[in-house]
Amino acid sequence: MKEFNIQPVDRALQAAIQQKIDNLNKPKGSLGRLEELAMQVCLIQQTLTPELRQPAHILFGGDHGIEREGVSLSPREVTWQQMINYTRGGGGVNMFCRQHGFKLRIVDVGVDYSLTPDPSPKGEGSVVFLDRKIARGTKNFLYEPAMTAEEWERALTVGREQVDACYAEGSNVLCLGEMGIGNTSPSSVLMHLLLGIPLPQCVGAGSGLDAAGISHKLNVLSQALEHYRAVSEGFTAADTIRYFVGFEMAAAIGAMLRAAELRMVILVDGFIMTACMLAAQQLCPAVRDYAIFGHCGDEGGHHLMLNAMNAKPLLRLNMRLGEGTGALCAFPIVDSAVRMMNEMNNFENAKITKYF
Amino acid sequence: MKEFNIQPVDRALQAAIQQKIDNLNKPKGSLGRLEELAMQVCLIQQTLTPELRQPAHILFGGDHGIEREGVSLSPREVTWQQMINYTRGGGGVNMFCRQHGFKLRIVDVGVDYSLTPDPSPKGEGSVVFLDRKIARGTKNFLYEPAMTAEEWERALTVGREQVDACYAEGSNVLCLGEMGIGNTSPSSVLMHLLLGIPLPQCVGAGSGLDAAGISHKLNVLSQALEHYRAVSEGFTAADTIRYFVGFEMAAAIGAMLRAAELRMVILVDGFIMTACMLAAQQLCPAVRDYAIFGHCGDEGGHHLMLNAMNAKPLLRLNMRLGEGTGALCAFPIVDSAVRMMNEMNNFENAKITKYF
Repeated sequence: MKEFNIQPVDRALQAAIQQKIDNLNKPKGSLGRLEELAMQVCLIQQTLTPELRQPAHILFGGDHGIEREGVSLSPREVTWQQMINYTRGGGGVNMFCRQHGFKLRIVDVGVDYSLTPDPSPKGEGSVVFLDRKIARGTKNFLYEPAMTAEEWERALTVGREQVDACYAEGSNVLCLGEMGIGNTSPSSVLMHLLLGIPLPQCVGAGSGLDAAGISHKLNVLSQALEHYRAVSEGFTAADTIRYFVGFEMAAAIGAMLRAAELRMVILVDGFIMTACMLAAQQLCPAVRDYAIFGHCGDEGGHHLMLNAMNAKPLLRLNMRLGEGTGALCAFPIVDSAVRMMNEMNNFENAKITKYF
Repeated sequence: MKEFNIQPVDRALQAAIQQKIDNLNKPKGSLGRLEELAMQVCLIQQTLTPELRQPAHILFGGDHGIEREGVSLSPREVTWQQMINYTRGGGGVNMFCRQHGFKLRIVDVGVDYSLTPDPSPKGEGSVVFLDRKIARGTKNFLYEPAMTAEEWERALTVGREQVDACYAEGSNVLCLGEMGIGNTSPSSVLMHLLLGIPLPQCVGAGSGLDAAGISHKLNVLSQALEHYRAVSEGFTAADTIRYFVGFEMAAAIGAMLRAAELRMVILVDGFIMTACMLAAQQLCPAVRDYAIFGHCGDEGGHHLMLNAMNAKPLLRLNMRLGEGTGALCAFPIVDSAVRMMNEMNNFENAKITKYF
């Protein structure tokens, strides 16, 4: 795998940042999670006056071979239909990007359809569609690796290049989202393999399976794991990850790693993006310093995965839409934390008795 | 007490609203709490296309006689110092009002100081200061009622008039906040009296008491309750409430009741504002239909109070600053819910297979 050179954040500034936070005119610690977030963003940016510039959202789309096994309630065609819907501004991701001022990049990394979206989407000046298709969906990991080593590298590169483009446009904060019918399945498998959580606790309803559907999905994934275990001797972490993930997930992993390399703030979305951060962390542990977990969703294992990763999500709104919507909804909280550092008066300036 | 004529929301539209929500292009229920919020706002506004107009924040300030008993870590002077700080734009409340586009009204209802703020606060075109002082602090409820029946009516009227002013400016969504050193004490007492929760579970650290401080506060409040019980035969709910609350709390109660009367969305803040909503609900139960609970804070009993009220806060960010900051931080979530109703495409328009 091409190297990502990620530096853990330098903590030398920590005491100075804490002193500034503690001298803002409020009871000590009274802004709770905002104070922790402010510390993290200050450390990432190595400053006492952080800023969030040109927020960018990248939504990667791809189809999954495993979908052929009936592991999802939604049919495969929903992937491309939704991708087109996003280019037209009608998806969940669009409204939250508009609300919070995010530029949206919609990237086809492996959708099973020839997408020919409108060249200039209606009323959406800040939406870009990019064709970076590697294949029309992954292989079926019930029988074989989802992608080859070469495809994996290409998908990582797609992610890397998209982040480079955002960075070149001045962005220092990134949300990632996905569209890919079937992608809770590889996420559940990664959670099981990388965190050692029993498979049944990792498998959930996805877009709306009933109990029989979940049982079938669990059965398919168990068989896939059995086959994987028979062939995986000598696998690297990357070999294991690419055995299961979709192109959109591999691109997101590449994007996370590149964003950390560039010291960008990364807002992590729901179940699938958390699984991608877990995979990214397996490859380069320092990526975690740059991650803010936006939302704990409703998908069965998400809170277990977050707990096992020692990650504290900002929101719990019972959402399970994907697309990056949970991360986007958390953005104003991060913005509040940054404003606290820059806009709140301190005790001395405000001439207020420091009462602690 | 002057009557408030609050209508419970009319639920006749409920089925039509739910049908619209279920036909948006997302798995059914996948926007979780946003869907519940959208339902509530639609019912309040009696529409399938809700909107949030001219958001307004009213911060009421007042001092408390009970502060003389050493129930707060912060000295009384912090109330007026902070009130002046808010008029200058340097408080927590200011930055969140700026972030979310709220007009801020700072209202002195009973601060123990002659406030003479800058006539034109720097860089704060949307901040208004109003002198509506009823007295320089309440009486000490360890010995006597905090306010007279006449003062209570005047404080309710201050709240009512401020909401009328916001409404006249086109606002249909309201946040309320408070500044008043000592005001967790009356809030704890109301929680105990109106919800039957044992007093020790209602008493917390406020702005930062240690264990000995909390124990002293509990002791003072127990004595106050003993005296109250000896004199309160024949008290109405309003008599009980005015026995303990500060002028800023009474004004907030009046504001909540008037906002509900005008069918405005009310965003409820932390421990003190939740206690005020509890009191408002005791006076007019229908006020609850208009309340959205923004944040569950760190003050000891807040989650117990919310649970007992069957209220589900949107955020849990371990904040305990007051001023309305928890409610303000939740505003973008409500905005997201409203955008969902207006901006998200439906399955038919988006030409997406409806897969459930």
